[in-house]
Amino acid sequence: MLVDELAKGGLEAVCVAPGSRSTPLTVAFAAHEGIDVYSHLDERSAAYFALGRARRTGEPTALVSTSGTATANFHPAVMEADQARVPLLVLTADRPHELRDSGANQTVDQVELYGDAVRWDAELPDPEPDERKVRSLRTTAARALSETGGVDPGPVHLNCPFRKPLEPIEVPDAVPDAFAETLAGRGRDGAFVETESGTRALADAQYDDLVRTLENADRPLIVAGPADPADLSVLDPDRVATVAERVGAPILADPLSNLRFGPHVDRESATGPVYGGYDAYVDTLPEPDAVVRFGASPTSKPLRHALRDSDARQFLIDPAGDWREATFTATDLLAASPGPVFEGLCERLEADAGAKTGSENEWLAAFADAERRHWAVRDAALESSSLEAEPFEGAVLADVFEEAPDPATIFVSNSMPIRDADRFGRPRDADLTVLSNRGASGIDGITSTALGAGSATGEPLVLVTGDLAFYHDSNGLLAVDRCGVDATIVLLDNDGGGIFHELPIEEFEPPFTAQFKTPHGLEFDALADFYDLAFERVAPVDFASAYRWSLESAGTQVLAVEFDSEASHRRRDALAERIREELRGDGE
Amino acid sequence: MLVDELAKGGLEAVCVAPGSRSTPLTVAFAAHEGIDVYSHLDERSAAYFALGRARRTGEPTALVSTSGTATANFHPAVMEADQARVPLLVLTADRPHELRDSGANQTVDQVELYGDAVRWDAELPDPEPDERKVRSLRTTAARALSETGGVDPGPVHLNCPFRKPLEPIEVPDAVPDAFAETLAGRGRDGAFVETESGTRALADAQYDDLVRTLENADRPLIVAGPADPADLSVLDPDRVATVAERVGAPILADPLSNLRFGPHVDRESATGPVYGGYDAYVDTLPEPDAVVRFGASPTSKPLRHALRDSDARQFLIDPAGDWREATFTATDLLAASPGPVFEGLCERLEADAGAKTGSENEWLAAFADAERRHWAVRDAALESSSLEAEPFEGAVLADVFEEAPDPATIFVSNSMPIRDADRFGRPRDADLTVLSNRGASGIDGITSTALGAGSATGEPLVLVTGDLAFYHDSNGLLAVDRCGVDATIVLLDNDGGGIFHELPIEEFEPPFTAQFKTPHGLEFDALADFYDLAFERVAPVDFASAYRWSLESAGTQVLAVEFDSEASHRRRDALAERIREELRGDGE
Repeated sequence: MLVDELAKGGLEAVCVAPGSRSTPLTVAFAAHEGIDVYSHLDERSAAYFALGRARRTGEPTALVSTSGTATANFHPAVMEADQARVPLLVLTADRPHELRDSGANQTVDQVELYGDAVRWDAELPDPEPDERKVRSLRTTAARALSETGGVDPGPVHLNCPFRKPLEPIEVPDAVPDAFAETLAGRGRDGAFVETESGTRALADAQYDDLVRTLENADRPLIVAGPADPADLSVLDPDRVATVAERVGAPILADPLSNLRFGPHVDRESATGPVYGGYDAYVDTLPEPDAVVRFGASPTSKPLRHALRDSDARQFLIDPAGDWREATFTATDLLAASPGPVFEGLCERLEADAGAKTGSENEWLAAFADAERRHWAVRDAALESSSLEAEPFEGAVLADVFEEAPDPATIFVSNSMPIRDADRFGRPRDADLTVLSNRGASGIDGITSTALGAGSATGEPLVLVTGDLAFYHDSNGLLAVDRCGVDATIVLLDNDGGGIFHELPIEEFEPPFTAQFKTPHGLEFDALADFYDLAFERVAPVDFASAYRWSLESAGTQVLAVEFDSEASHRRRDALAERIREELRGDGE
Repeated sequence: MLVDELAKGGLEAVCVAPGSRSTPLTVAFAAHEGIDVYSHLDERSAAYFALGRARRTGEPTALVSTSGTATANFHPAVMEADQARVPLLVLTADRPHELRDSGANQTVDQVELYGDAVRWDAELPDPEPDERKVRSLRTTAARALSETGGVDPGPVHLNCPFRKPLEPIEVPDAVPDAFAETLAGRGRDGAFVETESGTRALADAQYDDLVRTLENADRPLIVAGPADPADLSVLDPDRVATVAERVGAPILADPLSNLRFGPHVDRESATGPVYGGYDAYVDTLPEPDAVVRFGASPTSKPLRHALRDSDARQFLIDPAGDWREATFTATDLLAASPGPVFEGLCERLEADAGAKTGSENEWLAAFADAERRHWAVRDAALESSSLEAEPFEGAVLADVFEEAPDPATIFVSNSMPIRDADRFGRPRDADLTVLSNRGASGIDGITSTALGAGSATGEPLVLVTGDLAFYHDSNGLLAVDRCGVDATIVLLDNDGGGIFHELPIEEFEPPFTAQFKTPHGLEFDALADFYDLAFERVAPVDFASAYRWSLESAGTQVLAVEFDSEASHRRRDALAERIREELRGDGE
C-alpha cells in the first residue's frame, strides 16, 4: 500500500540495497511496473545514485535499506540533499517496536536518524489491518512525497517497521475481506491526497525597489550561482538575459548555474551578456553598484570576495527564503522563486531601461574586454606546443566543455575539477546540464551521483573526477553495468589531494605530503578492469581527440590524464596572473 | 592543547582523513610522537579501522575528519561502536559559529550529529586565548576520553570549530606570553583530570539468589555471548570454567565470547566444560533449569530460541545494566561486570557444589555426547572425498580455526561467515581472539575493522569475509599498504547474498535473484591487483594447505574460495539434520 501510494503520487524510481527486514518494500517495488528499480550493493553509493537522479530530474527518487548500519550509510547523501535542495525519499526498514533497544540483531535507533538534515521525518505505525492506520499510511506516503518538494525541496525520511513474515506469504485472516476497499485507497488514479504546491512570486509593490535600483544603477551585475534542481526546469535563461540586456548588466554565470551554457549564449556578442572567465579577472574591474543574485554561493572565491568587498545594494533571490550568504553582503533578501521574479522584471523593465546598454557602455566594455583576453590567454595555453611544455588540469576542463555533445549532462567533482570548470569552461551555445555535489561539497559519492544523473536521461553523460574522489566512490562504478548507465569518465590523476597546493599548509613539511597531499600510488587501470570498463591513459595534449573518441563509442570509457598537481597549480596561477597583468597594463 | 591533553590521557592511536578545516588537529597529531597516526582517504573505512583497533585493544582510538559529509561517513562505525561498546573518540572539524548555516562551503549542521549513538557529545568553544576556555578545553578533552570507557564504553563526539589561519603559522600576539603556563596544563605528566573508573561488582547479599539457584539446579547452563571489548582483558575464562565445573554446567561459548578458544579448553575432557557445536543440537536436548548468561545476544538462532522456550531462571550479567535481551526470557538482571561476578562465584561455590558433576551426570553426558557426534559428523564432511563431492562454506571456517596459529586475531564477517564460524569452529586450546562487528551486524566496514584490529598487535591476522562484504569495503584494502597491516584474507565468494537462501524469500522468484541474492559477477583478482595484494583462487579441498602457506608467508594474501551458495546452504542443513537424526535415534 505504501509503494502503491508513492506510485500514485508520481514516484518514478527507487534505489534498493538488499536486506531482509526491508523485504516487504523491495518486493512491492520490484512488482510495481511503473517504478524503475535500481539495485545496488553499497548503500552509500545507492544513496548518491538516487541523489544524482533526483538532482538531474528535480523529481523525488526513493531509497530503500534494511535496518542497522545500512541506514547510516545513507547519511552523507542525505546531508548533500539537504544542502543542495534535492528531493530524496529515504525509506528505512526497522524492527517493530517490541524489538527495539532489546539487543536484537541489526537493531539500532533509527528514529530521527538524520537529525535536522531532513525536511520531514515520520515513523510509520506497526503494520496492522486497522482502518485509521490505512488512512494514516496513505496520507503519510502522499505527504512524504510532497514534503520532498515545494519551496524548499530536500530529503524526507520514513522509518518503516515490519513484522515477520516479511515475505509475500498468504497469512489466513491477516487482512479481513471487508478491508479490500479501504486498502485500495480512494478508487481513483491519483494520490490519496493530491498536492498542488504554489510558487513564491513577488507582489507588484515588492518589485519597486529592485526595479528602481536596477534602472538607476551605472554598474549593475547579475550573479547566477549554482542552480537548485527545481530551477533547472523553471528558470528561463532567456528572461535573465533579457533583464541583463535591458539594464546593461553582465551575467556572471557559475558553471553550475544553468546559465553558462545554452541557446541564450551568444559568443559573438561583444558585450555578453553571459560571462564565464570572471574568476581570473573580477578583482581587477570596478565595483558594481547594484547586484542581483540567485542560486547558491558562487564557486569562484575571487567573485565571492569581490561581492564581500562591495558596498553595492545586493538583492539575493531565494525560493526558500534561506540566507545562503556566507559573505554576509546581501542587503535585501527576496524570498521568491527566481523564475517568476525574472518574468516579472521582464514585464516591468522598459526595453531601454537605461541608456547604459550597448557597446558604448564602459562598464560592459570592461567586462567584455577582460572576458575576451581571458579566453585568448586560455586558448593560447591550449595550443599543442604550450600544452606539451606546460600541461595543466584546466586544459582538460576546457576541452570537456568545448567538445561536449549538445545536449549532454556533465558532472564535475568537487575539489579542483569544479574550480577548473569555473575557470576554463567557456560559455557556449549548447544545452549542457552541468552538475556537481555543491551543497556540502564533499568528494564522496561523486561517481554514483553522476551515474544517477545519467540514468535519468538519454543524453550523453560525462563525469570529470579526481583520483581521490574516484577512489572514494570506487564502489559506485558497479552501477555502470548493474544500472545500465554509460559514461565518459575523465579521471584527472595527480596522485593525491592536489587542492592542498592551493592552501598555506603546502609550506609545512611534514606533515604536508603524508597527511594532506596523501599520495597513494594507485594505478586505476586495475580498478577499471575489476568493473570491466575500458581504460585509456591519455596525455594532456591528446585529451581532446580521446574525448571525442569516447563520446562516439558505446559503453563506458575511463580516460585517465596524469598531472603533477603542484606544476598544474603553478600554471593555473600563472595564467591568471598573465590576464591580470594585461588588464592592469591597459589601464595604465 | 587538545591533542596534548588526549595524549596525556593515554590516547595511543588516531585515524585521520585529509581535509582543510581539520588542519590544526592533523598537524598536532602528526607532530605528537606518542600517538600513532593512520592516514586514510575514505572516512567510512577510517572509522571502521579505528573501531577495529579499539575493539581489539579495548582502549579508545580517535578519529579526525574535516567538516561536511566527511563527518556523516563516520556514522555507520559510530553506530556499531555504540551497539558493541567500543571506545571511539570522534573529532570533527567545523567552521566557527559565525559561518554556520550561512551557505558557506562544506558547512553542515554537525552538532549532535550522531544522535543517541554516542555516550557523550560536546561542542568545543571557538578557539581563543581565554583562561577559562583553556581549563574548559583540557577538562573536556580529558572527559571525552574518559566517557568512551567506564561501565558502558562507546563512542564520544567532539565537534571542533577552527578559525583561519588553520596552518601552524605564527600569528603575532595570538597567544599572550602570560598564557604559556596555563596552556601547559597542570605541569604534571598525567591528564588535566585523572579519572579512575570503578568496576561494578555485586555485594555479598546480591550473590545469594544466584548461588542458591546454581547449587540447586539439576540442569544448569552457562551461556557466553559475544564479549564486550572491555571483557576481552578482564574476564578470566578459567574462573568461568571453574564455576561450570563446580555446578556441573556446560558452557555454550559463542565464537565471539573469548571462551571458545584458550588454554582453559580441554578437548580430551569427556564432559566439557566448553561446548561449541550447540547450534546443531541444542534443540534436541532437555531444557536447562537454570541459566547464567553474559555477553551480547548469542549468534546461534537455535540457542536463542532454546533460551526463549525455556522456563528456567535466567540470570543475565551485564556490566552496563543494559537489557540486551531480544528473546525477553531473562528473569534476573545482574548489573555488574562478568569478571568480578565469576570471581565472586568461585569464592562462594564449594568445590563440590553439587554431586551433579562428573561423568555420571546425565545432563553433562547428553551435551558431551551431542558435541562428540557433532564434530565427528563435521570431520567426516571435511574428508577430502566428501568435500570434493559436497563442498560447503563451513568447511573453510572449520579449517580457519583448526589451523590458526597460536596466538592469532581472527575477524569474521557478519552474514554467513559468523554463522558458519559458530557452527563449525571447534573449541581449541589456543589463544585466538575472535572478533566481528556483531553490535549492529552490518556487512559494511568489515575489511577495515579487521585491519584496524590487526594494527593493534603483532599477532597474525586472519579475515574471513564474503564477497558482498569484501566489495562493500573494498576501499578498506588501501590500509594494507598504507597502514602497514598484513593479513590472510579468506574470501568466501558465492557471487551474491548467500544468506538469503536461509530465508523464505528464496521461494519467490522474481524478485529473489535480482533483489536479494543480487549476483554481481565480480572477479576479485582485479581488485587485489588494484591494491597490489597476492591473490589465489583455491578449491575448497585445497583450502587448508593454501591457508597454511599464507600464514607462513609475509605480506597479505587473498585466498578466494568459490561456492555455490544454494548448494552450500543445503549441505549445511543436511549436516545438522544428520546429527539430529543420530541423537533422536539414540533416544528412541
